[in-house]
Amino acid sequence: MKAYALLGGPTNLWPADIQARFRKAQKNGDLIVGVDRGSLFLEEMRIIPDLALGDFDSLHSNDLARIEKNVKDIRYSNPVKDWTDSELMLRTVFKDYGVSEVYIFGATGGRIDHFLVNLLMILNPAVREFANKICIIDQQNMLRFYNPGKYLIPREDYSYVSFAALTAIKNFNILGARYELKNYSGDYPRVFSSNEFLPGKNNCEISFEKGIVAAIYAKDVDRFHNLA
Amino acid sequence: MKAYALLGGPTNLWPADIQARFRKAQKNGDLIVGVDRGSLFLEEMRIIPDLALGDFDSLHSNDLARIEKNVKDIRYSNPVKDWTDSELMLRTVFKDYGVSEVYIFGATGGRIDHFLVNLLMILNPAVREFANKICIIDQQNMLRFYNPGKYLIPREDYSYVSFAALTAIKNFNILGARYELKNYSGDYPRVFSSNEFLPGKNNCEISFEKGIVAAIYAKDVDRFHNLA
Repeated sequence: MKAYALLGGPTNLWPADIQARFRKAQKNGDLIVGVDRGSLFLEEMRIIPDLALGDFDSLHSNDLARIEKNVKDIRYSNPVKDWTDSELMLRTVFKDYGVSEVYIFGATGGRIDHFLVNLLMILNPAVREFANKICIIDQQNMLRFYNPGKYLIPREDYSYVSFAALTAIKNFNILGARYELKNYSGDYPRVFSSNEFLPGKNNCEISFEKGIVAAIYAKDVDRFHNLA
Repeated sequence: MKAYALLGGPTNLWPADIQARFRKAQKNGDLIVGVDRGSLFLEEMRIIPDLALGDFDSLHSNDLARIEKNVKDIRYSNPVKDWTDSELMLRTVFKDYGVSEVYIFGATGGRIDHFLVNLLMILNPAVREFANKICIIDQQNMLRFYNPGKYLIPREDYSYVSFAALTAIKNFNILGARYELKNYSGDYPRVFSSNEFLPGKNNCEISFEKGIVAAIYAKDVDRFHNLA
């Protein structure tokens, strides 16, 4: 079983086919998760989440009542807490539900503190072991995460792939891509951006001995796209 | 002299009064800077930048010709390079022009690799000394940066202030805010989000001994704002 989670970020950054993705997932028996306002967004698409988490303090009481009536498993978080809602979501889907992967939507854009919480939750030591099972998706980006090791990074339907050291990093290599990197070590986060797969190649390779790396797949959108 | 720089990020995330801000800055004799596609955006607002930087490889040749005709100081960057365009911009405005501060627009949203480049450029050891003179602004966020020390963080016209350790950090304190933090040390980046100023107080205090901290001022916008 996989999990599909919707967070409360700006709806205009969703992939255009988000409804179809969640419906298909529900049909397949995957776990549908709403995090805070994301639970309401799912309800508004007439998709009842299996699990809802959050403090829900930004919701109107009638909206919360509807969620409480429809959703079987609701976890209330404390606004003053060590774990953010998105960290709590990761812990719950992996430890309580044992899902094999989680696809996260609504995690980007809008308030930068919210986005950074959603990006850096991967670094929480209690969820690091699940890093390679987490995928964040929006309209023009897809993020995957890696613990130390050696990986083939598959070409996907994106023009660019960048790699970000999210922590201090040791002996980082990017091989078989347009811009190679060899034995880079650094004690602070750094992005190696706008890399590309080589023509005719279906993957590139990364390896590193210490730290956490994000692969950022991205595509350009028309500059007026969001103004339309 | 201050600098006002426009980068190539999505135009729908600009503050609504961006034209007025750049016009006023130009009238005041501040340095107007276009970075890559940001140079074109300035031209389209009929604001001729004093300085343009980038590889300009995404511009049509007639647009680039117009920039080359009008802008006095143009710096061409190499697409295969150690410094990103935004790092080059920081180095140029501080070291060559000696500006006292830089306000950066068009640095957020869109491609996540681009945003992270713009956020993490602060960590480049060659520009860290200027961290507290850098301000990133968009429609709903304002970011400021701090080297180790003790600082009063002023209340501004935002509802929330969060603090992000962008690196490993030592003895981080947040005092006089809604959520206090005492002597936190950690070896990876972490966000302490959704903090607030206390009622009636015009500032809070942060201090830390090692690392770089970002203050993230944010406000909520109507969820349908960007769909209008």
